[in-house]
Amino acid sequence: MSENTFKTDGSIDSFENPHRGRDYEIEFVAPEFTSMCPMTGQPDFGTLTVTYTPEARCIELRSFKYYLQTFRDRGIFYEDVVNQVLDDIVAAIAPRWVMVTGQFSTRGGISTRITATHPEEAP
Amino acid sequence: MSENTFKTDGSIDSFENPHRGRDYEIEFVAPEFTSMCPMTGQPDFGTLTVTYTPEARCIELRSFKYYLQTFRDRGIFYEDVVNQVLDDIVAAIAPRWVMVTGQFSTRGGISTRITATHPEEAP
Amino acid sequence: MSENTFKTDGSIDSFENPHRGRDYEIEFVAPEFTSMCPMTGQPDFGTLTVTYTPEARCIELRSFKYYLQTFRDRGIFYEDVVNQVLDDIVAAIAPRWVMVTGQFSTRGGISTRITATHPEEAP
Amino acid sequence: MSENTFKTDGSIDSFENPHRGRDYEIEFVAPEFTSMCPMTGQPDFGTLTVTYTPEARCIELRSFKYYLQTFRDRGIFYEDVVNQVLDDIVAAIAPRWVMVTGQFSTRGGISTRITATHPEEAP
Amino acid sequence: MSENTFKTDGSIDSFENPHRGRDYEIEFVAPEFTSMCPMTGQPDFGTLTVTYTPEARCIELRSFKYYLQTFRDRGIFYEDVVNQVLDDIVAAIAPRWVMVTGQFSTRGGISTRITATHPEEAP
Amino acid sequence: MSENTFKTDGSIDSFENPHRGRDYEIEFVAPEFTSMCPMTGQPDFGTLTVTYTPEARCIELRSFKYYLQTFRDRGIFYEDVVNQVLDDIVAAIAPRWVMVTGQFSTRGGISTRITATHPEEAP
Amino acid sequence: MSENTFKTDGSIDSFENPHRGRDYEIEFVAPEFTSMCPMTGQPDFGTLTVTYTPEARCIELRSFKYYLQTFRDRGIFYEDVVNQVLDDIVAAIAPRWVMVTGQFSTRGGISTRITATHPEEAP
Amino acid sequence: MSENTFKTDGSIDSFENPHRGRDYEIEFVAPEFTSMCPMTGQPDFGTLTVTYTPEARCIELRSFKYYLQTFRDRGIFYEDVVNQVLDDIVAAIAPRWVMVTGQFSTRGGISTRITATHPEEAP
Amino acid sequence: MSENTFKTDGSIDSFENPHRGRDYEIEFVAPEFTSMCPMTGQPDFGTLTVTYTPEARCIELRSFKYYLQTFRDRGIFYEDVVNQVLDDIVAAIAPRWVMVTGQFSTRGGISTRITATHPEEAP
Amino acid sequence: MSENTFKTDGSIDSFENPHRGRDYEIEFVAPEFTSMCPMTGQPDFGTLTVTYTPEARCIELRSFKYYLQTFRDRGIFYEDVVNQVLDDIVAAIAPRWVMVTGQFSTRGGISTRITATHPEEAP
Repeated sequence: MSENTFKTDGSIDSFENPHRGRDYEIEFVAPEFTSMCPMTGQPDFGTLTVTYTPEARCIELRSFKYYLQTFRDRGIFYEDVVNQVLDDIVAAIAPRWVMVTGQFSTRGGISTRITATHPEEAP
Repeated sequence: MSENTFKTDGSIDSFENPHRGRDYEIEFVAPEFTSMCPMTGQPDFGTLTVTYTPEARCIELRSFKYYLQTFRDRGIFYEDVVNQVLDDIVAAIAPRWVMVTGQFSTRGGISTRITATHPEEAP
Repeated sequence: MSENTFKTDGSIDSFENPHRGRDYEIEFVAPEFTSMCPMTGQPDFGTLTVTYTPEARCIELRSFKYYLQTFRDRGIFYEDVVNQVLDDIVAAIAPRWVMVTGQFSTRGGISTRITATHPEEAP
Repeated sequence: MSENTFKTDGSIDSFENPHRGRDYEIEFVAPEFTSMCPMTGQPDFGTLTVTYTPEARCIELRSFKYYLQTFRDRGIFYEDVVNQVLDDIVAAIAPRWVMVTGQFSTRGGISTRITATHPEEAP
Repeated sequence: MSENTFKTDGSIDSFENPHRGRDYEIEFVAPEFTSMCPMTGQPDFGTLTVTYTPEARCIELRSFKYYLQTFRDRGIFYEDVVNQVLDDIVAAIAPRWVMVTGQFSTRGGISTRITATHPEEAP
Repeated sequence: MSENTFKTDGSIDSFENPHRGRDYEIEFVAPEFTSMCPMTGQPDFGTLTVTYTPEARCIELRSFKYYLQTFRDRGIFYEDVVNQVLDDIVAAIAPRWVMVTGQFSTRGGISTRITATHPEEAP
Repeated sequence: MSENTFKTDGSIDSFENPHRGRDYEIEFVAPEFTSMCPMTGQPDFGTLTVTYTPEARCIELRSFKYYLQTFRDRGIFYEDVVNQVLDDIVAAIAPRWVMVTGQFSTRGGISTRITATHPEEAP
Repeated sequence: MSENTFKTDGSIDSFENPHRGRDYEIEFVAPEFTSMCPMTGQPDFGTLTVTYTPEARCIELRSFKYYLQTFRDRGIFYEDVVNQVLDDIVAAIAPRWVMVTGQFSTRGGISTRITATHPEEAP
Repeated sequence: MSENTFKTDGSIDSFENPHRGRDYEIEFVAPEFTSMCPMTGQPDFGTLTVTYTPEARCIELRSFKYYLQTFRDRGIFYEDVVNQVLDDIVAAIAPRWVMVTGQFSTRGGISTRITATHPEEAP
Repeated sequence: MSENTFKTDGSIDSFENPHRGRDYEIEFVAPEFTSMCPMTGQPDFGTLTVTYTPEARCIELRSFKYYLQTFRDRGIFYEDVVNQVLDDIVAAIAPRWVMVTGQFSTRGGISTRITATHPEEAP
């Protein structure tokens, strides 16, 4: 049993879907997401929710935690956060279906929610 | 990184949709909207919600905050607030679809809610 | 800016729909409606909700407040309140669609709710 | 204005539907219903809800209150309460559609709810 | 008026449906159900809900209370409670349709809910 | 009456469905599930919910409690917990339909929910 | 038994406290209070709550309803409503202790609550 | 009866306490307070609550609404808002006791609440 | 009006208490606090609440936001976060009384709350 | 920065109170506590809350997590859990004051809460 069998370099690690062929659903809720505003350099905060049905591979949860931490010091727009997480998940595990939602904290009196799915229609 | 790369003159600034072709949704909730009643000169208060799917361009959030502040000293009817915000967003970013809702505070014992979309049917 | 550019004689004033052709919705909630019971002369209380999509003209809110106050000293049945408000709105602004609901306070241990629309099917 | 222009003899009084032809809905909620258990002679309590669309005539509310009070000293089963109220309304005003629900208080640790409509399918 | 015109021997008493031909619904909620675990002899607790549409006969409520009390000292599985109540109701009154639900308290850290209907499709 | 007529060896015991042919539903909620993380050896906690319609046999609840306790000292991924419970139930009782959901505690600031059904479409 | 044994002239009728010497509490909540604003002539609305411990006499509820209706057409400040009701109750029944609270509807975006007691310290 | 018998120049108008000598309490809640940040020129929003016991004079509510509107275009710190409102009330009506609380909207992820009383100990 | 009249170097800026001598209370709630665990290098999250009564000087809110951001990349124990914030506030403004509370997110299944005051007894 | 600077052998590790002399409070809430019933060998579940004021040393949180995990396979009564945790904390860090509360899951329809403090009076 080793602490280091999953990646901690910020890439999304995966493991073989041990139940391939079954149409089951996995949901992660990460309420401690933080990144930096690319305009002002101020920290942003939000909750990311990932819901997906795996095909050949599943997301390794602890590597995903390290992956989300790579945003901590990056200047990035809200729209890019949600779409890049979606793209990175698709690149890493090519799921049957995945939805990413970001609910971001109020800034200047305005709150923002972004939702993206791949493919755009649920199977 | 500059404070001034977005417009603060009250126009709706935008940036290129970095994920053009994906049908994703963005929602802003602005609970601190205020304008003036054109009949009495008294302040009006309300919550504006904007939900849209971008096409070529996205709304820049901080310029949008300044845009909403241009209503602070304007005398304008509720119906015009909602429809003008809708028109200005359509003019600024030509989204696939956008809905604007204004929930306005009670006046004379009567509260008002206005909703408008463009185009009138969601895609 | 004048207090008197809208009617205060109890008729429903209107203004030209500045966004004619757009299918948007307006809702007024008036929780302080009061009239008189035509049988007993006792005061009745209720909440009137008006939801409509304007065609050529919109209801002017402050004249509508005065309009509702014309019921204050009238003896009128609940059914007539809701249907007359509906009829008066249709006569005043000929909306695409309008619904009027009256939720009346408990009388003799019984509460009453009346709902009427014009036309009877929503567009 | 007279206290006695509606019936107080326990029959359901009615008046001509002043808006005949319009398909509108009326709902009475009577939370103070009480009758007697025919088995034990003990008082029963419950809430009666009547929802209907009038045809030629409407239920006169105050006569309906007196009508409900005729159950106060009657020994009657719950099922009969709901069905008799339904039958009496149909006999009195022949509505387009009517639903009667009785939610009766707990007796012997068991609560009871009865629902009947006429005609059995809503129009 | 007699206390004893309904059965208290634990059978489900019934009376002629005084409104036969009408498709109305009756619901009993009995939150004080208790029986014994047939494995351990320990008491079980739960809430039984019976929803039915009568045909020729209705369930007499007070006899049903005595009927439910016959489970108090019986060792019986949860599945059998719900299905036997369903069977006994079908045998006693042959309703058009009946559903029985048992929500049983946590045992060994696990709570159980059983639902059965007769016939299996609602009419 | 014996404590030991059900299995305590961690297999899922079953009994003949005494109501075979009836399409009824059974739901267990087990909020005290615990297993070990196979990566770190740390304990995991969660709530398992099993909903099924029996065919020839039913799950014996107390043996199921012992079955769930076999996970207490096992290193197993969340995905495997839900899918193995599903597989073991299918192997033990071949139900008409079964759904297993695991809602697992927050780890590294991220919570996880897994849902699987067999067959994948409800009957 | 006559409908007219209580006063309907707007004075507060009373009856002998049948449990004099016991320190018990009575509370009325009247959510349909209405009066007129002495500045604008517009109607005011609110909820009056009266809590008291009787000495020799109790407030007759139906006369109190007529008493509250005497405010319907009077121009009166909120402060005067609460204090006058307090004074009138003290004059009518000389209670051990009484508190009157008025929670008045929002006007100009500001809501108002007034509380007065007699004597100023609770016994 | 005149619209203009209260001040609209932004001073706090008052009227003679018609119940001087009684220790009663008045509370205003103004959820539509807005001013400007003196550092950034951005609008601030908050809810002001004023609770007081009058001595010789009471606050005239409608003048107080105009008084609060004088902050709309002023650059002022949160601390100064609460303390100046407190000082202005003390200067205007010299109440027995008054508490002013400002609950201000989140700015930069931090919300602020300020409370001040005069005199510092309640009587 | 300048963006830069407050410090952005991570020190706690202050301004002269404009109401010195008055015993009023100020509360900041900062739900977006984040630092690093000194043992594991993983990010920590929490909510800091500061409640104080100023003496000669007040905390400048925007500099305090920058001050809290200095913890973003620091490895620091929870106990040290709360006590250091307390010490830094005491050093910066020497308040009459101050309380700092940190409610930190769950780690390893355990949540932590730390509270410290200065001086240890409220005045 | 090392993963192993705290003990993982199940003893309560501590570190020097960096703020000795200040009377501050620390609270841990551990909702994932589990042990074994010494009578039946069945698992028990509960939430442990520890509130203390440190003297010379503080509890190291991650070693405390491992310490709580030593109960996972021990047969121990609820009363002994709470008192042993209290004793072990006192032995490890000799705090000024400490309170331990265990809220244990329902067993046989009864839930249990145990609270112990040392010293028995708060300072």
